[in-house]
Amino acid sequence: MADTGEFVRDARYITDRITADAPPGGPTGERIGEMVWPVQPGRYRLAAARACPWAHRTVIVRRLLGLEGVISLALAAPTHDERSWTFDLDPGGVDPVLGIHRLQQAYFARVPDYPLGITVPAVVDVPTGAVVTNDFARITLDFSSQWRAHQRPGAPDLYPEAHRDEIDEVSRRVYTEVNNGVYRCGFATSQDAYDAAYERLWTALDWLEERLATRRYLVGDTITEADVRLYPTLVRFDAVYHGHFKCNRQKIAELPVLWAYLRDLFQTPGFGDTTDFVQIKQHYYIVHTGINPTQVVPRGPDLAGFLTPHGRESLGGRPWGDGTPPGPVPSGERVPAGHNPLSGTDAG
Amino acid sequence: MADTGEFVRDARYITDRITADAPPGGPTGERIGEMVWPVQPGRYRLAAARACPWAHRTVIVRRLLGLEGVISLALAAPTHDERSWTFDLDPGGVDPVLGIHRLQQAYFARVPDYPLGITVPAVVDVPTGAVVTNDFARITLDFSSQWRAHQRPGAPDLYPEAHRDEIDEVSRRVYTEVNNGVYRCGFATSQDAYDAAYERLWTALDWLEERLATRRYLVGDTITEADVRLYPTLVRFDAVYHGHFKCNRQKIAELPVLWAYLRDLFQTPGFGDTTDFVQIKQHYYIVHTGINPTQVVPRGPDLAGFLTPHGRESLGGRPWGDGTPPGPVPSGERVPAGHNPLSGTDAG
Repeated sequence: MADTGEFVRDARYITDRITADAPPGGPTGERIGEMVWPVQPGRYRLAAARACPWAHRTVIVRRLLGLEGVISLALAAPTHDERSWTFDLDPGGVDPVLGIHRLQQAYFARVPDYPLGITVPAVVDVPTGAVVTNDFARITLDFSSQWRAHQRPGAPDLYPEAHRDEIDEVSRRVYTEVNNGVYRCGFATSQDAYDAAYERLWTALDWLEERLATRRYLVGDTITEADVRLYPTLVRFDAVYHGHFKCNRQKIAELPVLWAYLRDLFQTPGFGDTTDFVQIKQHYYIVHTGINPTQVVPRGPDLAGFLTPHGRESLGGRPWGDGTPPGPVPSGERVPAGHNPLSGTDAG
Repeated sequence: MADTGEFVRDARYITDRITADAPPGGPTGERIGEMVWPVQPGRYRLAAARACPWAHRTVIVRRLLGLEGVISLALAAPTHDERSWTFDLDPGGVDPVLGIHRLQQAYFARVPDYPLGITVPAVVDVPTGAVVTNDFARITLDFSSQWRAHQRPGAPDLYPEAHRDEIDEVSRRVYTEVNNGVYRCGFATSQDAYDAAYERLWTALDWLEERLATRRYLVGDTITEADVRLYPTLVRFDAVYHGHFKCNRQKIAELPVLWAYLRDLFQTPGFGDTTDFVQIKQHYYIVHTGINPTQVVPRGPDLAGFLTPHGRESLGGRPWGDGTPPGPVPSGERVPAGHNPLSGTDAG
């Protein structure tokens, strides 16, 4: 937190990569953060949390690409203490594959007394129980590019060569102004810092409202990484950021274009069916005692509108490009009934 | 605050009355709380605050009835400390008529070391500087019934004999379930107490949404005390109660009937022109550090919608009954430009 009351995100990560051409065995390299690990089905476990927007990206991409069978999934509980995310949702409070209660233990297995944030998403090497990478911005891109040989038939190309520059450009603005912009509003501790953050956020949302008025997706005419990165913030907006983070010029439900775009994605396999509003709300309202000292979790908003027709088909677009939609969510990974408007239905 | 985490309002007040048939001079009576004071133009000063919904009622009724020339108005600043509302907005921080900085001094002038809440509205006897009554539920009814001889020509009958039972019945439910219901949500300190409060509130708002679908006003076909009592809560809802008090199933702007009803009243002289969103937001977000420790005041919501056509004329109704609307706001009492969507315009 800077002296001006502005929120500044700690952006230091373990930046090893898992690549298709890395030598088997491994890892290879001189220093943590610069090592490469080989793509290898069944070797890695993705530690995520339904609550976390940065982790949500990875869960969406893993499902869209059909990597569920080759990269397993550990889901941390929505609330955590100062030290770590924990596996409180698992029997005995222990992740059944990694055998740990605190995600911190996987960080310590890699770097003893690891001093930085214990964040999700993190990819963990199952044999050693050590974190390979928590570089959220890279994990999804590597799922797309490095794991091709193990993706499902019909997996979409979320990071197509022809559009990478534009995806990167849009994603950069979405990251600094929207994904992080909501936190800049919510964690501001001075009125001036908040006011400036609010202006930045709404400038960006107005830009998106205009950009998406004439195109179904952010870049090109298919779902790409750019949409995956915007969605976790948009879907949390009315439930959390609007009130808890004071991003309250309008609800997304009051912005016709973004609301239709959000419903379109929500109703697309991989998006709504990986969204858990109960855990999302618990996380923010219970963990951030500096903003919500009572830890009371709001009952609203009413979410029924998420299932209403969005009409975005009229803009054209080919959601999956030359690919196909993913099949049903594996039974062990379904969002619990009642945790989103789809869950408990066939589509959930 | 009860042990269950439920918010319980302290409802003990100084309940003297000012009546048309009280002996001149006065007050008359045995005990504070049971005394009567005579109606007398120029004798009393209404201490209010733009921020406070309970005081807002009295400011609306005073204006609708044209009592500005006979009961003067002291406006406390939006924020206050534990002890008292203060006159920080006045030159030197002192009310020019009462000559006091803290409203507490007017309470002490009546009851030394007055131990209960220093609340607005309070009617103060100017010669002695002492509080006559802070019984907010009675003050407006007495403005209507006891001050008739001094009301403006064309003053509406806000508490008509023929509808008093229905006004009382509706007002009772509005008071317990809505006016106070939002506080019960916001000040709950346990999840169970909040959940119960939220259910009660929305049950009542659903009832109002249905009731007002076929009638322009709450009771009869004219503006009455019942509308005056609902308005201050509705107009604060999206700006404060939705986020700050977690009353977030929907915004009022998402409920078609209540939103049109609210805009209708807002655009009616006496309602919107006495509404100060800047002071309202400052009050709640800065004073309640137990809910909002950063004291940052949200920039939203966008208020432009308040001036859009409401279409409620099609339900019929005669806003003023046999009376007429009030004239312009006296120049010394206008809400500052920029503090609501009307202010700074001819209608403000």
